[in-house]
Order: sequence, then structure tokens, then C-alpha cells
Amino acid sequence: MESVKYWYLRNHTIFDALTDDDYKQLEWLVAFKTCTKHEFIYFPEDEVRKVYFVKRGNVKLGYYDDDGNEILLDVLKENDIFGQLGLEENNSSHGFAMAMGNDTVLCNFNVSEFEAMLKTRPTLAVNYSKQVGKQQMTVSRRYSSLLFKDARTRLVQFFKEWAEEEAKGITQNIVLKNYLTQQEIAALNGLARQTTARILGELKEQNLLDVRRREVLIPSIELLK
Amino acid sequence: MESVKYWYLRNHTIFDALTDDDYKQLEWLVAFKTCTKHEFIYFPEDEVRKVYFVKRGNVKLGYYDDDGNEILLDVLKENDIFGQLGLEENNSSHGFAMAMGNDTVLCNFNVSEFEAMLKTRPTLAVNYSKQVGKQQMTVSRRYSSLLFKDARTRLVQFFKEWAEEEAKGITQNIVLKNYLTQQEIAALNGLARQTTARILGELKEQNLLDVRRREVLIPSIELLK
Repeated sequence: MESVKYWYLRNHTIFDALTDDDYKQLEWLVAFKTCTKHEFIYFPEDEVRKVYFVKRGNVKLGYYDDDGNEILLDVLKENDIFGQLGLEENNSSHGFAMAMGNDTVLCNFNVSEFEAMLKTRPTLAVNYSKQVGKQQMTVSRRYSSLLFKDARTRLVQFFKEWAEEEAKGITQNIVLKNYLTQQEIAALNGLARQTTARILGELKEQNLLDVRRREVLIPSIELLK
Repeated sequence: MESVKYWYLRNHTIFDALTDDDYKQLEWLVAFKTCTKHEFIYFPEDEVRKVYFVKRGNVKLGYYDDDGNEILLDVLKENDIFGQLGLEENNSSHGFAMAMGNDTVLCNFNVSEFEAMLKTRPTLAVNYSKQVGKQQMTVSRRYSSLLFKDARTRLVQFFKEWAEEEAKGITQNIVLKNYLTQQEIAALNGLARQTTARILGELKEQNLLDVRRREVLIPSIELLK
């Protein structure tokens, strides 16, 4: 019977091109963990010496401001990676990582072992580079949107990118599984809760977007703006 | 005599572990280019199919808002990389890249050729991953600072990070070469020009920071806050 570790690695996009022998060797290096809702993976100022892979569920990355408010930097989903992406040994996290629901499953490697592994498995190294590069471009886009877009444009763009990623190709009657509260949607876009509620209300009235507790409905990607 | 391409690659941190044979092969793939001041490397909405390496000088990445104002996302320096970091074939840039001074020197590869190259040279793939990961963490930190810090804290942190990178270890009487205008410093931190001028004035009066046209003086890293 295949081990659970093996199975978790096997089904992750980054590891998809490895041989059976590779998997057997990786098993000794990878740790995996099921987290419960709101469990911290690391705290702000922790030294992070691992690279984490989201296998199932969602993870939020964020900060606390001086008044203790939570500021969200990103919400990760299956196949995303986080942690010490620069593979450096000494670097504090500058933020926290927290599991959003029960049954969030993560794999992780120590950076030094991960680096050694990449050096002998170029395809893995390339997949890793591509994934980090892709996430880097997403953060940059989000950042620029924060710098120069008004609140409605930011929210519309946020939901459009979400739809683009999860409903590839489909442009009508999109139903996305929602894992965010209104507070989290506000925080991810650098907006106040009230502003967010008002704009989502407008968008719903105009039949452009309906954000419910468990799902997000988008009648038409083209009309949403 | 060594070719110029060879020399430019040889002195870039990402390529430092390659063999002489590797370099000879890479020469066929790499293009290099000297840019003049304010020359566009790519425009917003261009399809970017290259990975660029900054060999000399500075490159700014930015956007234009609806009123045509320039918004700065990042200012890159020697050894930084940009372009299609996710190595995807079809992806528009969502922003521009522009050389900041004369004699800005860039190397670039097509993404497909670069990917093929990484697959046969794992050390290069690892170096590339580390560099992308490091830059990803820098953007995330900047982004979070924008979300939750006041104007003075943002500016102070900006100069501290700059000093940390360029004056490693030194904490007193730091002199940094300045390549930014006050307008660019404002744009990089999501601030108005006037706010930036006022705060830099305060910091100068308090003998904590002096931003001149060609240099930035920091009497003491510990006192700067």
C-alpha cells in the first residue's frame, strides 16, 4: 500500500514529473500535517526555515497592525506554496500563516534539505521556480491594484481573478466555492468592512455579483465591472 | 578574448556556479542590451516572453493610473530579475519596465529557452528559485507596509531596508548612492509628493536622515525611526 506521504506528494503539481524512485527518496524528507481551523502554522517574527505546500484547504498569510487588527496579505489554496521561498536559513517571517478551516493539509520541507533535493532534480527545481514566479506576479498585481485603483475596481478585479483561476474558460453563470468572510475580503483588498459591504450590495443589486456565505455567483464575467 | 556576453553572465550571482562549458552554451541563448535613460524595456499590456537580469544600473517597474500618473511598483538594481518570472508563454505584463539611467545593462532569455536551460542545470534552477523567492518576500513586505503603516513609518522602513541591503553590517554614518527622485520615493511608498517632502524635511531637521540628489545620508540606523 502506498504511504500517505507518497500520495500527498504525488498529487501536487510541483511534484508531478518525478519518478517512483524519486518519490521514495522524498518520503524521508517531507513532513505533512493536518491543521485545525485557526491553527497557526507560524507566528509573526518566527524564524521560518521551511517551505510549505498547501495540499488541501486554505491558508491565510497576514500581519497584525499596532492596534492588533488583522491585515491579510494573501489567501492561499491548493497547490500554492509559502514559507521561506528564498530558501535562506535565517529570516524571520514578518507575518503569520494560519489554517482557515479544519482538515487543511500541508506538506513541508526544511529549506536546506529542499535545496539539496532541487539540485539533483532539475524538473522539480523548474516547477518550483515557475510556481514561485507565478505567485510573485500575483502579489505584484494585487499590490499595484492597491496603489492606484478605487475600491469598486479593486473588488471587481479581485473576483475576476478568482473566477479566472477556478472557473477556467467558463464565463457565464459561474459558481465559486466561498471560503472568505466579508471581513477577510475587505482585509485582502485594503478596504474598510463598511466600504466593502456597500459595494458588494451595489453589485448584487445590479445583478453583477452575489457573495453568499458558501458561494460566490457571477452571472457573467464580461458584464462584471 | 572572452566575449562580452560571457563576461556579463559570469559576473551575475545567478550564474556563478556554472562551468566554462555551460557558459559557452549559454552564450547562444542570451541576448544583452544597453539601455538609455527612460527607455522602455516593455510597455503595459505587452506580451512578455522573456526573463531579464539587471547587470548594471536600475530599472523601474510601474503602472499608469487612469489619469496617466506613474505608479511605481519596484525599483530594481544589479542582480535583480524581472519579466515573465513564472516562465509562462502567454501573459501580458500588466505594467511597464523602464531603464532609469544611461548605461543600464540587461541580459535576457526567452522563457522557453530559459526553461530548457534550467532543466539541464539544476544549480542554475536553484539559484533562480532563490532569487525569485527573495524578491517575492520583498514585495510582500512592501505590500504589507502599505496596508498598515503610517506615512513616516513606511518611509523610515523603506530607507532602513535600502541601507540593510547596500551597507551590510555598517550601522553608523551610512552613505548610499541615490538614484531616486523625491517623486519616485513617494510613488514607491504609495504617498503623495507633499507628504513625502514634509516627512523627509522633519527627518532631516531631527538629524536622522538626509536625502540629497545624489546620496542618502543616515547618521545611525539605530536612531532612525
